[in-house]
Amino acid sequence: ARRISAPRGPQLSAKSWLTEAPLRMLMNNLDAEVAEKPEELVVYGGIGRAARDWTSFDRIVAALKALEDDETLLVQSGKPVGVFRTHADAPRVLIANSNLVPHWADWEHFGRLDKLGLMMYGQMTAGSWIYIGSQGIVQGTYETFVEVGRQHYGGDLRGRWILTGGLGGMGGAQPLAATMAGASLLAVECRPSRIERRLETGYLDRKTDSLEEALAIIDSACARKQAVSVGLLGNAAEVFPELLRRGVRPDAVTDQTSAHDPLHGYLPAGWSLHDWERAQESDPARTVTAAKESMKRQVEAMLGFHREGVPTLDYGNNIRQMALEMGEEQAFDFPGFVPAYIRPLFCRGIGPFRWCALSGDPEDIYRTDAKVKELIPDDPHLHTWLDMARERIHFQGLPARICWVGLGQRDRLGLAFNEMVARGELSAPIVIGRDHLDSGSVASPNRETEAMLDGSDAVSDWPLLNALLNTASGATWVSLHHGGGVGMGFSQHAGMVVVCDGTEAAAQRIARVLWNDPASGVMRHADAGYDLAKACARERGLKLPMLEGE
Amino acid sequence: ARRISAPRGPQLSAKSWLTEAPLRMLMNNLDAEVAEKPEELVVYGGIGRAARDWTSFDRIVAALKALEDDETLLVQSGKPVGVFRTHADAPRVLIANSNLVPHWADWEHFGRLDKLGLMMYGQMTAGSWIYIGSQGIVQGTYETFVEVGRQHYGGDLRGRWILTGGLGGMGGAQPLAATMAGASLLAVECRPSRIERRLETGYLDRKTDSLEEALAIIDSACARKQAVSVGLLGNAAEVFPELLRRGVRPDAVTDQTSAHDPLHGYLPAGWSLHDWERAQESDPARTVTAAKESMKRQVEAMLGFHREGVPTLDYGNNIRQMALEMGEEQAFDFPGFVPAYIRPLFCRGIGPFRWCALSGDPEDIYRTDAKVKELIPDDPHLHTWLDMARERIHFQGLPARICWVGLGQRDRLGLAFNEMVARGELSAPIVIGRDHLDSGSVASPNRETEAMLDGSDAVSDWPLLNALLNTASGATWVSLHHGGGVGMGFSQHAGMVVVCDGTEAAAQRIARVLWNDPASGVMRHADAGYDLAKACARERGLKLPMLEGE
Ligand SMILES: NC(=O)c1ccc[n+]([C@@H]2O[C@H](COP(=O)([O-])OP(=O)(O)OC[C@H]3O[C@@H](n4cnc5c(N)ncnc54)[C@H](O)[C@@H]3O)[C@@H](O)[C@H]2O)c1
Ligand SMILES: NC(=O)c1ccc[n+]([C@@H]2O[C@H](COP(=O)([O-])OP(=O)(O)OC[C@H]3O[C@@H](n4cnc5c(N)ncnc54)[C@H](O)[C@@H]3O)[C@@H](O)[C@H]2O)c1
Repeated sequence: ARRISAPRGPQLSAKSWLTEAPLRMLMNNLDAEVAEKPEELVVYGGIGRAARDWTSFDRIVAALKALEDDETLLVQSGKPVGVFRTHADAPRVLIANSNLVPHWADWEHFGRLDKLGLMMYGQMTAGSWIYIGSQGIVQGTYETFVEVGRQHYGGDLRGRWILTGGLGGMGGAQPLAATMAGASLLAVECRPSRIERRLETGYLDRKTDSLEEALAIIDSACARKQAVSVGLLGNAAEVFPELLRRGVRPDAVTDQTSAHDPLHGYLPAGWSLHDWERAQESDPARTVTAAKESMKRQVEAMLGFHREGVPTLDYGNNIRQMALEMGEEQAFDFPGFVPAYIRPLFCRGIGPFRWCALSGDPEDIYRTDAKVKELIPDDPHLHTWLDMARERIHFQGLPARICWVGLGQRDRLGLAFNEMVARGELSAPIVIGRDHLDSGSVASPNRETEAMLDGSDAVSDWPLLNALLNTASGATWVSLHHGGGVGMGFSQHAGMVVVCDGTEAAAQRIARVLWNDPASGVMRHADAGYDLAKACARERGLKLPMLEGE
Repeated sequence: ARRISAPRGPQLSAKSWLTEAPLRMLMNNLDAEVAEKPEELVVYGGIGRAARDWTSFDRIVAALKALEDDETLLVQSGKPVGVFRTHADAPRVLIANSNLVPHWADWEHFGRLDKLGLMMYGQMTAGSWIYIGSQGIVQGTYETFVEVGRQHYGGDLRGRWILTGGLGGMGGAQPLAATMAGASLLAVECRPSRIERRLETGYLDRKTDSLEEALAIIDSACARKQAVSVGLLGNAAEVFPELLRRGVRPDAVTDQTSAHDPLHGYLPAGWSLHDWERAQESDPARTVTAAKESMKRQVEAMLGFHREGVPTLDYGNNIRQMALEMGEEQAFDFPGFVPAYIRPLFCRGIGPFRWCALSGDPEDIYRTDAKVKELIPDDPHLHTWLDMARERIHFQGLPARICWVGLGQRDRLGLAFNEMVARGELSAPIVIGRDHLDSGSVASPNRETEAMLDGSDAVSDWPLLNALLNTASGATWVSLHHGGGVGMGFSQHAGMVVVCDGTEAAAQRIARVLWNDPASGVMRHADAGYDLAKACARERGLKLPMLEGE
């Protein structure tokens, strides 16, 4: 199997930092420290890939090495398809992954095209080359758990515990996020390897294959107001109902199995891992039905907790939709995490801002951490996050940092990082990107745009405009994906990354992109009628033609 | 009712020609000479609109008048939603119309959102402001009919006749295209007003409400090898089966009712126009079912002609899909016009190139006609078209011309027009655009991408890349639409327009855009395995990373 690792240091292997950056970030996505199954080019989230196959990977690398600073590489579902002359302020790479004409936009058609070698599932940051390992998701999950504590437990999660499923690429962040937020956590995970991995990286504290033992650990931790995380080897479709039946009552319930992908993402109850993997090949239809049947069972247990007053939230894996399709009409009774806890942030353009040190030098990140604190001195919550992240999160692949910041902060930070590169305070350029799960970049009616105020959940003009605007603003690479997170048919979303190479030209682009990108999110939420967003738009002087004079 | 007409002449009402151009073209789309129902902002194709409502229209106009040359206006389903700072080489307008997350991408959800005032149906060139009236479609239809003659009748359509339905915004081009190509034509149309309109503009020769009279006119014209067109007032769902039953055999059969929109586009058999219009409001579900039932009848008649050897083609209104949904399993037995007659052109980047004189002066178009002949001296077919078009096609709104040209020709013509503007040979700038139905800009498995060689019909990464690339190349406005032509759920497509204002900066942009845009079509077809496209790519030196060394 091939082992990929991005070049480090100040030496270029491509012709400029604008092309070196996507090259390193593509490779970084496939680094064994970062990717879930690097040998299959799978980065995270079931089958989310960075490139379609190894030939495509090699040709992308070759194309990036040869790319001039007035050329643009086009990538279609993980395959390089063309190089065109554009101009210096245009993106160097434009990416479209997994997009299908709506009537054909389901797993069945996708699977057929995937087998024919015509498609690739790009998830969100897998196919757009800005996945940074578990840290990205630790922050989002941490923010969510803290908000759960604020809304339901007076801001204090000590002595509380959370029940969840899945310790995969993103779900593996849950135990650390919970303990950072002060809560204990019980995660049901069916693969021993996943539990081991979270123990090794220090994200998870304990493991067991006994439900009794798991509950005992949790009980004693809660009694002592300590925060402990436990990985329980088991099937969530079996354990969740069993806990409900026994009258056990967690303080919050959620789930991060890969329910969005019923063929590869969810082990049916009663099946062995071995049988499951074989049946995925030999009898996909039966596998899907069995998985969805089990998801329905798990959702029914979650509904049970919900009805008894336990805060229960869908964490964006589309498990409610699957249960609904299997006949559970009440599936959507408990909310998604976005409308419940994240939307107020989106209204102000606050979202998963992240950056990565192309040098490979952790010191570069520590210096930017300090710069963030210097520029945003009055946000103790942010400072705490930065301190805990430095202490408890191991870098995976190229050192990177994430923190949720909003309109007006993102461009300031970006320009400051660019200046640090210019002044030689960092040993190589920085790339700045974000998840597609952000304020203006996604339409996903079962997750990010669930229950929008004006009913515009399914309108996907917005992420398309976001991608076009980032292209027009001069992002270094821009991507348009379909089906990330919640699976085929259920989302459309856009990514962007911009390079801080220390030049004045980069500063111009950074100023435009890192303003326009979150501003387009404020615009989208203001248009939907959110007062918070309208106030933010007014305060920041956004030009929104339909809201003028309001 | 408001009457819109674009300003003429060299005087600017906006701050530059880059913003004056979209302003005039938006207004031109709503000119009473151009639009089918200007008072409802409907340009063509059922309910294809140029702006969401009059307030949106007014705000777009105001925004364009105020727009600076480093700003970009965002339009979401016909409504102006934001103005952002970009740069001189970025598009001045970015448009996303009618896009829905796939699982919700059907007429039902669209209708609900449309009623809420959250969406607009943009068709193709309606919402992207580059519709030029019937001429655009006359050329495409003419090329198709000529190709039918070549493939089936030794290149000679004299004494032959074509049966069709619909004389609406696009369908109204059929009689003229047929007689230009040498054939007679019988068009069944249910609205007297549509028949009158085609008579007035000289596109249609005769009208009648008697089937006997219609057949008599056709018979005698064919006997004398003359080409005559007849508009028959009637319902295609009734007339087509009746003709089949009587043993009448046309020499070709097609249809251009608005079957893609079963609620507003197709009169059910046996219904009066009055009842139909009321039922659209009062009982949409019943209207849709009745319309689709009737479409099935018409398709069954078309299948009958097809089985008896009459060349029968779907002209891109999705009528086969509707019949299939009503249980006609054989619906797709007769081909769409694209795989049968148009794809070989797409493989060489040949498509519906068009331009428009912002001056309003017909002489500007005649001068560009002459320039086309001068630059492409060796194409008699093209010269004939230009001569006939000048003679027989009345300009509607701003004078415009269309001709199908390919990769390597489009940029040459664009640069030449720009020079003519620079040298004062034209009285104002020219805009160059195209239909979304083009080589690289559409995914539409029942029409433009039907039966692709590699099975990639439904992959919509391609039009998204096309839009991103045109944005990166500096088109003046770029659009991404869903559902054009074949209706909600069945297509995704992109538009672009570039302005020739005579400046050197424009020349740079024109050279990039008018090369890259058709080149992306050649790329898409080469990737699908078409030898014609691969040969074209080699000949033109395109950089296609996966095909290198082939
Ligand atoms: N921001 C968001 O909205 C967000 C954030 C994180 C995750 N998610 C969603 O959560 C899901 C998980 O993401 P991931 O990257 O961790 O995926 P993953 O595929 O890497 O991990 C899923 C894990 O679930 C385990 N699993 C599968 N079936 C199980 C079962 N029946 N019982 C117990 N464990 C089971 C698998 O072994 C695997 O470790 C995805 O659907 C993702 O889209 C969404
Ligand atoms: N390039 C292409 O693929 C292409 C080109 C032209 C048209 N089309 C398709 O053809 C259709 C027509 O386009 P248009 O712009 O002319 O639409 P339109 O709505 O302006 O015209 C449709 C016409 O059909 C008539 N009609 C409706 N039901 C009828 C019936 N049962 N019998 C007889 N007449 C009936 C209407 O009165 C109307 O005049 C659309 O679906 C369009 O997408 C496709």
